[in-house]
Amino acid sequence: MNEIEQVIQLLSRLPGLGPRSARRAALHMIQKREGLMRPLADALDRAVENIRICATCGNIDTHDPCSVCTDPKRDDTQICVVEQVGDLWALERTGAFRGRFHILGGVLSALDGIGPEDLNIESLLSRVGPDQPVKEVILATNLTVDGQTTAHYLTERLAASGVSVTRLAHGVPVGGELDYLDDGTLSAALKARHALES
Amino acid sequence: MNEIEQVIQLLSRLPGLGPRSARRAALHMIQKREGLMRPLADALDRAVENIRICATCGNIDTHDPCSVCTDPKRDDTQICVVEQVGDLWALERTGAFRGRFHILGGVLSALDGIGPEDLNIESLLSRVGPDQPVKEVILATNLTVDGQTTAHYLTERLAASGVSVTRLAHGVPVGGELDYLDDGTLSAALKARHALES
Repeated sequence: MNEIEQVIQLLSRLPGLGPRSARRAALHMIQKREGLMRPLADALDRAVENIRICATCGNIDTHDPCSVCTDPKRDDTQICVVEQVGDLWALERTGAFRGRFHILGGVLSALDGIGPEDLNIESLLSRVGPDQPVKEVILATNLTVDGQTTAHYLTERLAASGVSVTRLAHGVPVGGELDYLDDGTLSAALKARHALES
Repeated sequence: MNEIEQVIQLLSRLPGLGPRSARRAALHMIQKREGLMRPLADALDRAVENIRICATCGNIDTHDPCSVCTDPKRDDTQICVVEQVGDLWALERTGAFRGRFHILGGVLSALDGIGPEDLNIESLLSRVGPDQPVKEVILATNLTVDGQTTAHYLTERLAASGVSVTRLAHGVPVGGELDYLDDGTLSAALKARHALES
């Protein structure tokens, strides 16, 4: 297998790329060798060498502790618990949260045999001790069965610490049309209705 | 911009990947750092260094002349002319053609200002001289307006060389349903109908 075939074969293992799109991507890179292929090769090289998992929160960054944990402008009293780094990125893009994060690295799943000891739960508990500044833990796991189970489990584990445990609101997505929403979301939105501020 | 952001930004410039899928691909690689990210970085490094354009046919390979041009088992009497390297790959996957190739590097296009001097046409003509073994040139440009124009132009330019110039058959794709075919393909298939061999 020559280098081109190797590149195609490896690209086709990325999510969202199949053999056909991997070939197209490889050809595109070959045609932009200096402008795209070399920079990507260099960026990947540097990323492989420099990527670290933050020992505090589980975030992926080029230094440990990560830039979220070391940012002095962030609010130490709030920790937002997410399943994966991608969820942290999604919340960061909103710019709506300025506290710290904690990445579980997955969810509890009886089906996949994932128990509490497989997730970063002990390190979360160690961050909410009585001598810590944390006042609120926001559980932002996905609204899947496993995500909900994990949130309930964490609520119980966090009860002893005395911090307030909150959950993201359920409801109609912004721009969402009622007619296209599933019944569960619609019931949740109705149940969580609130008075209009005047 | 740190290394992770650089990787995402470069990945998002590949065809078929947008910002969201580039993030997913980057996260996937980070989670498979040794199994996927490092091999891809290495393969890209080697590809950038070793990729050559074949001076004979315009193919992309890791040596010049390319493996198609140097393969002694291939038929020297046939040259298949294609627009892009991707077309060569597509034909090679069929295994139905065992002659040589010639890559034009594009098609004539008045709209994009691409004339004969921008394509590998002179090098094609130099391969079909009277002292050469080539007996047939198969024009396998796309069935677009520009592809057809280019095929007509090449037919004229090749006339003097005395080689027979052929074109891929038009017709109903294998597995294609008549009801879903465009009129042009259907007319072409009808016009090119042939007697059943018994």
